Amino acid sequence: MARFDGRAHDGLRPVTIETGWKKQADGSVLYRAGSTVVLCVASVDEGVKDFLKGRGQGWVTAEYLMHPRAGTRRQSRDGWNGRPLSGRSQEIARLIGRALRAAVDLKALGERTISLDCDVLEADGGTRTASVTGAMVALCLCLDGLQRKGLLSGPVLRTPVAAVSAGIVKGEALLDLAYVEDSAAEIDLNLVATPDGDVVELQCTAEDRPVPRADVDRLVALANGGISALAALQRETLARAGVSLDALVMPKS
Amino acid sequence: MARFDGRAHDGLRPVTIETGWKKQADGSVLYRAGSTVVLCVASVDEGVKDFLKGRGQGWVTAEYLMHPRAGTRRQSRDGWNGRPLSGRSQEIARLIGRALRAAVDLKALGERTISLDCDVLEADGGTRTASVTGAMVALCLCLDGLQRKGLLSGPVLRTPVAAVSAGIVKGEALLDLAYVEDSAAEIDLNLVATPDGDVVELQCTAEDRPVPRADVDRLVALANGGISALAALQRETLARAGVSLDALVMPKS
Amino acid sequence: MARFDGRAHDGLRPVTIETGWKKQADGSVLYRAGSTVVLCVASVDEGVKDFLKGRGQGWVTAEYLMHPRAGTRRQSRDGWNGRPLSGRSQEIARLIGRALRAAVDLKALGERTISLDCDVLEADGGTRTASVTGAMVALCLCLDGLQRKGLLSGPVLRTPVAAVSAGIVKGEALLDLAYVEDSAAEIDLNLVATPDGDVVELQCTAEDRPVPRADVDRLVALANGGISALAALQRETLARAGVSLDALVMPKS
Amino acid sequence: MARFDGRAHDGLRPVTIETGWKKQADGSVLYRAGSTVVLCVASVDEGVKDFLKGRGQGWVTAEYLMHPRAGTRRQSRDGWNGRPLSGRSQEIARLIGRALRAAVDLKALGERTISLDCDVLEADGGTRTASVTGAMVALCLCLDGLQRKGLLSGPVLRTPVAAVSAGIVKGEALLDLAYVEDSAAEIDLNLVATPDGDVVELQCTAEDRPVPRADVDRLVALANGGISALAALQRETLARAGVSLDALVMPKS
Amino acid sequence: MARFDGRAHDGLRPVTIETGWKKQADGSVLYRAGSTVVLCVASVDEGVKDFLKGRGQGWVTAEYLMHPRAGTRRQSRDGWNGRPLSGRSQEIARLIGRALRAAVDLKALGERTISLDCDVLEADGGTRTASVTGAMVALCLCLDGLQRKGLLSGPVLRTPVAAVSAGIVKGEALLDLAYVEDSAAEIDLNLVATPDGDVVELQCTAEDRPVPRADVDRLVALANGGISALAALQRETLARAGVSLDALVMPKS
Amino acid sequence: MARFDGRAHDGLRPVTIETGWKKQADGSVLYRAGSTVVLCVASVDEGVKDFLKGRGQGWVTAEYLMHPRAGTRRQSRDGWNGRPLSGRSQEIARLIGRALRAAVDLKALGERTISLDCDVLEADGGTRTASVTGAMVALCLCLDGLQRKGLLSGPVLRTPVAAVSAGIVKGEALLDLAYVEDSAAEIDLNLVATPDGDVVELQCTAEDRPVPRADVDRLVALANGGISALAALQRETLARAGVSLDALVMPKS
Repeated sequence: MARFDGRAHDGLRPVTIETGWKKQADGSVLYRAGSTVVLCVASVDEGVKDFLKGRGQGWVTAEYLMHPRAGTRRQSRDGWNGRPLSGRSQEIARLIGRALRAAVDLKALGERTISLDCDVLEADGGTRTASVTGAMVALCLCLDGLQRKGLLSGPVLRTPVAAVSAGIVKGEALLDLAYVEDSAAEIDLNLVATPDGDVVELQCTAEDRPVPRADVDRLVALANGGISALAALQRETLARAGVSLDALVMPKS
Repeated sequence: MARFDGRAHDGLRPVTIETGWKKQADGSVLYRAGSTVVLCVASVDEGVKDFLKGRGQGWVTAEYLMHPRAGTRRQSRDGWNGRPLSGRSQEIARLIGRALRAAVDLKALGERTISLDCDVLEADGGTRTASVTGAMVALCLCLDGLQRKGLLSGPVLRTPVAAVSAGIVKGEALLDLAYVEDSAAEIDLNLVATPDGDVVELQCTAEDRPVPRADVDRLVALANGGISALAALQRETLARAGVSLDALVMPKS
Repeated sequence: MARFDGRAHDGLRPVTIETGWKKQADGSVLYRAGSTVVLCVASVDEGVKDFLKGRGQGWVTAEYLMHPRAGTRRQSRDGWNGRPLSGRSQEIARLIGRALRAAVDLKALGERTISLDCDVLEADGGTRTASVTGAMVALCLCLDGLQRKGLLSGPVLRTPVAAVSAGIVKGEALLDLAYVEDSAAEIDLNLVATPDGDVVELQCTAEDRPVPRADVDRLVALANGGISALAALQRETLARAGVSLDALVMPKS
Repeated sequence: MARFDGRAHDGLRPVTIETGWKKQADGSVLYRAGSTVVLCVASVDEGVKDFLKGRGQGWVTAEYLMHPRAGTRRQSRDGWNGRPLSGRSQEIARLIGRALRAAVDLKALGERTISLDCDVLEADGGTRTASVTGAMVALCLCLDGLQRKGLLSGPVLRTPVAAVSAGIVKGEALLDLAYVEDSAAEIDLNLVATPDGDVVELQCTAEDRPVPRADVDRLVALANGGISALAALQRETLARAGVSLDALVMPKS
Repeated sequence: MARFDGRAHDGLRPVTIETGWKKQADGSVLYRAGSTVVLCVASVDEGVKDFLKGRGQGWVTAEYLMHPRAGTRRQSRDGWNGRPLSGRSQEIARLIGRALRAAVDLKALGERTISLDCDVLEADGGTRTASVTGAMVALCLCLDGLQRKGLLSGPVLRTPVAAVSAGIVKGEALLDLAYVEDSAAEIDLNLVATPDGDVVELQCTAEDRPVPRADVDRLVALANGGISALAALQRETLARAGVSLDALVMPKS
Repeated sequence: MARFDGRAHDGLRPVTIETGWKKQADGSVLYRAGSTVVLCVASVDEGVKDFLKGRGQGWVTAEYLMHPRAGTRRQSRDGWNGRPLSGRSQEIARLIGRALRAAVDLKALGERTISLDCDVLEADGGTRTASVTGAMVALCLCLDGLQRKGLLSGPVLRTPVAAVSAGIVKGEALLDLAYVEDSAAEIDLNLVATPDGDVVELQCTAEDRPVPRADVDRLVALANGGISALAALQRETLARAGVSLDALVMPKS
């Protein structure tokens, strides 16, 4: 069965990562995966929140927000003007934050906070994985800046990470679901992982009814392939921006 | 290495499920797993929220809340008196709701809403999985009541589900983590599954740094063992309360 | 005219006070008066809020909250997820706090705060008076713990207090109204008092139209009888839990 | 012992009730009791809130709010710009509403809502009782207007009501406490009653420690004297405004 | 064409400014312009908000609020009990604050904050300009008090300011619009200016469609005439209250 | 005196208007004026808010929001997650809405709502005028789409409008202030006008002390020059996007 856009089952949508998109930022990318577009912006602040003070470590945090016209109809801004933020947005922001903290040695970062703002400008499925993959590049640009300014005594990145979705639609395992596929999926998986396949976060949800364990395994394998391709793209993007990913990664201890 | 409470690596904490605990309810259990205690209460309301009206289907939803003294120190009630509910509480409530919706045929349920209120009275790790496993039993009691009153034309349960955690602590894979173990875990997995091992939801998070894929697989296997034991306990609990689980489950089509 | 449950006009509903109900707490009771059930939990924190700092005294405060299924139908949690807390809940929490502060010598308590969380699990009338009477026992358990740990230089309790309702239904003065009686009452009284009949708080409301002063006097007399019985029960409950009430009460100066 | 302002123990502060103070209103008074000043404004709206619809009755409700500079220092407006309203303000608003509902035959009023807005412009003790007594006059002006417009088929007032405070300061029972007295009181009573002494609401709070029942009785007697004087003043005020109180009161059935 | 109230095109409504209206205040006026009534109250607090600390200057700020029955029907209090304050109220409060800050030398004022509370008791058009003009007088009374107490080393007022509206209705330029005129205006102008015609703030809005530049000029000229008359009234009002405006104004440098 | 960026006193910053920037939208532009960048997005919804129903007219509304890293340091998102939106943001959103409603014949638009979302991605002064000028183009693209789909019976635009700022810095009148100029300005003007110089909105604020009327006149003249240039640019931008502005404008009646 052919996919709606002619991709192979294990094919990613076309991904472009435009760096330096925002002038005011410590790192920014406009991340496009097919029709999904996310603006990922990194900001550094010296100091940490009260709950971390005095522990001699930094923090990485994230916010995730939909533009009101990210989809086919305008929707009220989530969590705006006195309304609580939706559970969905908070859940995704927490995922992005956890994913990037796993990538960084917070002790080595020192008592500073890096915030990643992920604004979804166009939503066509996979916004959370696009946010993680794009925010990773913004984070690297930001860390590169800190290193160049001599604010870090050495690399603080343990490893890059990337994220991708996969799902089973009408019995077929598909990589990187667009919205039309996602809404028909029987099972939906989001994987955050390293280029080597180490797992940072795995979320797998049967959308309608329980699914066999083997289906999960098929999806993880499929997603790992996507992670490799995305990791290569992250590396190339940084190189084009004059940043060597290797120079940001801590030597193996 | 021995566990702090002498359990085997693949051992559950002692679980008790007390039914009929609340007089005002359509199904209620007091669920205890070791020192974790959750009050799970099911309520039926005729009708559904606006976004579902006219679709000829019902809904299952959940709320999750910590008692302010669930832990060793009193904390402010989450999301209370004008404050937004925390992302963590919303995320867990959404998980419980998804897990139980996967267990029910919402079309067969008809246009009614079942709410599961999960109040954590004591928190010692595993509160979200305890909430799912306990709420499942409260849901069954509630469905049994609907069937006895003749409000359902037949069984509406596709399958029972249960949930359990697992994690790797100092290199060892352990089932059903208590708080002291959870806070030391390198990786933390929560599995919602059927007695047969079909997956409803799998959440796996590396707490500190990325972990090998094989570790995830070890934890899934361990968790599946726990699910089987919990499913048996759910069945026995219902039987003791005079409810046959088989009579609630839809015949295989 | 007989009462709906066969009680005498001056009869209390069956009251049970289960202590040690929560493991994580500095004092806890599950208080049952007929079908009304309240979980009363005491927590101690060192220090006081800003408005009291430096005055060399402590504080006792309370929160009161209904479980969403405390009644015959599920209701939204009061004051939850961005909504302001209802006037009724705030009013009752303030009453419980004032009642218990009158019972304690705040100077002798020292700069610490005792919080009483009263969660109404089942509501069948009299939830505010049940909360006061139950919270009093939780407070005593908590003070006993502080004394045993040597954190207090001596007893800090001036006197125990208890609370009960009374009302006039179809012309007859009745003690300890259940919901069905309360909703038919022409006048409703809540009395917080000491075992000796000294008054801490008296609230009397004509539900429909003004009532003669003599009716108030009849209800106060009736309520005083109930207070004596509840005070005796509080004493016995503490004794069964190994706590001598006399050892908690300050000597008359 | 002389009072700070030379009043007798059973003396009210000078009270003036200015009617017709606001042009836009269905009844308004500026109520002064000593240095306490409350603007009480009545507004009629046709129809009732959802919870009353179809019951063939009306409603009387109240709001109570402090001007930010009602006292010696400016304070933030209570419950303003996203903050929840304080428990104290809600409690007082509820008291005012209950008191005035007891004065009116809601069936005879028909399906309309009368709102009483009580804005405390200057606060020197007794603001809640001033609000009740002043709002009663505003309500009468409003009912007079409804009768004149032929919107009521006859009188709908069961009885006028008034309110006053009393308290024991250094052992002496005093009527109508000013702030300096109120803050030193051992016990504080607020009575809402009819000119004949029938009780609408009695609230009595021991401020520091439990007090003998006899003290409550002394205060009630003292307060009843104050109510009589205030009721006469309400009657005279209305007469001066061309409104006969007798013409508003329903004949005894 | 005659105006609805017989005024000349360049005529102000009758204005009265009653001083000393509130006992608790550092300056207060009840300002009436035709049927519009605003209570303007000044309060001084030592110290400034965090964002100004250490700059050696003071601050002047304002709040603006409608009484719920300021108009012909009762409306919910704006921004109350958890709801955000409306954009309109915030916008007007910001305008009043800016206008009065332009009138004061904040350095000379020293590290203290003057708050102006403008409560609209009756609204018949021109409430924002009435608030500015009235608050100016309350501010002068407040500054006079500070000078008398010796808290200021000299005058801190640069200049008095006043405000007035103007608009074009059916082609005619009219000064000081009442509500019935304002709602029919094609263009609406609010001018805050000094007695000499220097501009503090000019806001001009075409209500329906763009208007020629010349219309704006006509309105500014008209408004300047109104400012002169209001400035004279402010001066007389202060003189009657025993305050010399000249003694408050800093000498020209 | 030379400007910081070498512009003439009456020179605009370089302006670019990129159309079709967002795929999901009924009209979108990325508007750049110097270093200020605003994403302006138009969305159409059939129907209008309750307060307009049945009047046979449409509505145009706007939201204005800063990206958290629009400036040199990250700031919390305004009005987010339970916090009320700031007065500044509401004031600007209301200005944009009024400006665009003056440009449209709401009756001719019919019962539909056009929302303009203005997201400030980079802030370097003039964000509100950039929002108006950019949103005007997005609105034209949106109206063109409605006309092409045959949803409008004819043109509904009365006139295009544009907006620009001007101010006096160290005595010199400057057009189109950048942030560094704006923060030093003695007086700040924002003008919304038509290409012919008709006024839609004029806001002029003395930042520190009152300024002579003549200064306002100088700024208006300067701003009118800027409006002409911006109007020409709007026209060219639309033409490049294949939209004839003349075809959108209603014939003069």
